[in-house]
Amino acid sequence: MGGDYAPHVVVEGALMALRHIDSDSRLVLFGDEGEIRRVMEEHGAPSDTFDIVHTTEVITMDDHPAKAYNQKTDSSIRVGYKYLKEGKIDGFASAGATGAMLVGAMYSAETIRGVIRPAISALISTLDGGSFLLLDVGLNVDCKPDVLDQYGLIGSAYAEAVLAKANPRVALLNIGEESEKGNLTTKAAYELMADNGCYNFVGNIEANEIFTGRKADVVVCDGFVGNTILKQTEGFYELARMRGINDDYIDKLNYEFVGGTAVLGINAVVLIGHGRSSALAIQNMVRQTEKTVKSGLVNKLQDTFRNF
Amino acid sequence: MGGDYAPHVVVEGALMALRHIDSDSRLVLFGDEGEIRRVMEEHGAPSDTFDIVHTTEVITMDDHPAKAYNQKTDSSIRVGYKYLKEGKIDGFASAGATGAMLVGAMYSAETIRGVIRPAISALISTLDGGSFLLLDVGLNVDCKPDVLDQYGLIGSAYAEAVLAKANPRVALLNIGEESEKGNLTTKAAYELMADNGCYNFVGNIEANEIFTGRKADVVVCDGFVGNTILKQTEGFYELARMRGINDDYIDKLNYEFVGGTAVLGINAVVLIGHGRSSALAIQNMVRQTEKTVKSGLVNKLQDTFRNF
Repeated sequence: MGGDYAPHVVVEGALMALRHIDSDSRLVLFGDEGEIRRVMEEHGAPSDTFDIVHTTEVITMDDHPAKAYNQKTDSSIRVGYKYLKEGKIDGFASAGATGAMLVGAMYSAETIRGVIRPAISALISTLDGGSFLLLDVGLNVDCKPDVLDQYGLIGSAYAEAVLAKANPRVALLNIGEESEKGNLTTKAAYELMADNGCYNFVGNIEANEIFTGRKADVVVCDGFVGNTILKQTEGFYELARMRGINDDYIDKLNYEFVGGTAVLGINAVVLIGHGRSSALAIQNMVRQTEKTVKSGLVNKLQDTFRNF
Repeated sequence: MGGDYAPHVVVEGALMALRHIDSDSRLVLFGDEGEIRRVMEEHGAPSDTFDIVHTTEVITMDDHPAKAYNQKTDSSIRVGYKYLKEGKIDGFASAGATGAMLVGAMYSAETIRGVIRPAISALISTLDGGSFLLLDVGLNVDCKPDVLDQYGLIGSAYAEAVLAKANPRVALLNIGEESEKGNLTTKAAYELMADNGCYNFVGNIEANEIFTGRKADVVVCDGFVGNTILKQTEGFYELARMRGINDDYIDKLNYEFVGGTAVLGINAVVLIGHGRSSALAIQNMVRQTEKTVKSGLVNKLQDTFRNF
C-alpha cells in the first residue's frame, strides 16, 4: 500500500519485476488483497503469481511515523516487518511512508551489534557503466567522525557483496583532495579512515569527481551532505529533461533506475522507495532487494562488526 | 601574474574585457611589465591600453599563503591590495593563489565592522535566464547559525545591488522544505533567519530546486555544503561535455561564464578566479568586478551592518 500510486503502480511494478528475478525467488505482497487481485486481473496475471498477505490499514505520509507504526498493527509496513523478523521473507521493500519504514528498520530489524548508527544509501550510476554507493543520504545528518569511519566499512562490505567489486575503493567526500582539507568532522574522519586498515581508503573525493567512477566505489559523507548531493543529482536529471536532452547516462541518474535506497547496518535487507515511485521504480527496487538478499550482505556485515 | 596560464591568458582576457566594460572604466594590470607588453604587442594593442604596475614577484600555489603574502611585498597580489587600500583602484580581481588572495582580503581590505565572518560566493545561472547567489562556497566550512543568518543579509544586499532584484528572495539550503528539517545548524539558522526581518526569507530550499530560479535569488549554506554544490555543478558541466551534450543553459554552468567568486563582507570589491582560468573566464571576472564596483555594494553593506 506504499507510495503515492499504490496499490496499482506497486502491483504493476511487482509484475514487471517477475521478468527479471530468479525463478527461485518469490514475491510476497502486503496490502489490500481485493485491490491487489483487481490489478492482477487487469494485467491477466494468474492468481498464484504472488503470495499475498492481506492487511487492512495504511500508514500515510501525514501520520506520525513512530505512533502510526505502533498503532496501525495491521498496516502493510508493520506486517511486512513482522514477516521479516520471523524469517518468512528475506527482504522487505516499500515506497510507503519513509519515516515509518525507518522506525521499523530500527525497532524491528534493529541495528547490527557494533554499528553506531545505520545509514541509508544511494546507488548512483557512473560514466564508466558502473555505479558507486553514496552513504549516508539523510538518516544521520550530524555525523561524528567515528560514524563516518564505520560508513566506510559498511560501504566497502556492500560494494564487495552487492556490486561484486574486489577491494572496493572507499573515499571521503570532501572539499579538497589533500588530507588536511575539510571541516572539523571530515578532517577528523580522514585520520580515522586512513588508520582503519579494514577497508581500502583512497582518500578524499570532491563532488565533481564522483560521477566518473575513476576514483571510488563508495563515497562516505554525513546525511546532510549526501542528501544534498542526491537531490542535486535529481535536479540535474530534471533540468536535462526540461532542456529536452536525451542521454543514456543522464537517464540512469533518474531515481527510477535504482528504485530504492538500502538501509544499511541493520539485521535485515530493507529498501525504501521514493513516495512517487513509478512501476519501473518499483520493479527496480524489487530487483535491487533480491540482489541484496542473495549477496549475503547482512551476514557479511554481522561478521565484520563481530570482529571490529 | 595569477592563474595557471598567466600572464598570457590574463592579458588576453583583459583585452577581451575592454569590449564590454564602460568607457569610463580603466583596467590596471599588476605584473611583469615586459611580459605584459609582449602579449599586448602580439595582439596589436596600443601601449596605453592599460595602466600597468610593474611587479617583480609571484606568489605560487605552493607558497604558504600568509607567509608569502607577508614576504613577497612586490608580488602582483600584494601590490594590488596596496593599490586597493589606497583607493587607487576600485576593485581587485585575480586568478592567482586563492589562499594569498584571501589573506589580502582579510588583512588588507578587512572585514566590514559588524560582519562575523566574510563569505565567498558563486553566481550560478538559472533556467529562467537569471542567476542566483550561493554563499558561502568554501571560506567558512564550520558555520554557526548566526553566521548563516548574516549571509542571508549579505546575499540579499548583493542581489539587490548587483543583480538589481527588488526584495530578493533568500532561502536556506536544507534537506527538506519544512522548518523543522535539517541538521542542528540549519534548524537553528532557520529560526534566526525567519525572525530576522531585515531581508526576505522564503524558507528552506532543496538542492534539486536551486537551478530553476523559481524559489530563490540567494541560497545560504555553510562553506562545506556550498563548495560541494559548486563542485557538483562543475562535475555536471564536465559530464555533459564528455557526453557530447550541447545545451545553452548547461554551457552557462561552466565556471568561465561568471569567471570569479566575490569575497563578500569585506571593505572592498575583491574577486577570485579559478587557477586554470581561460581568457574568457578572465574577461567575465573583470566584467563582474566592474559591475560589483558600480553597484555600490560595499557601501551598501557597510551601511547595513552599521545599523544591524
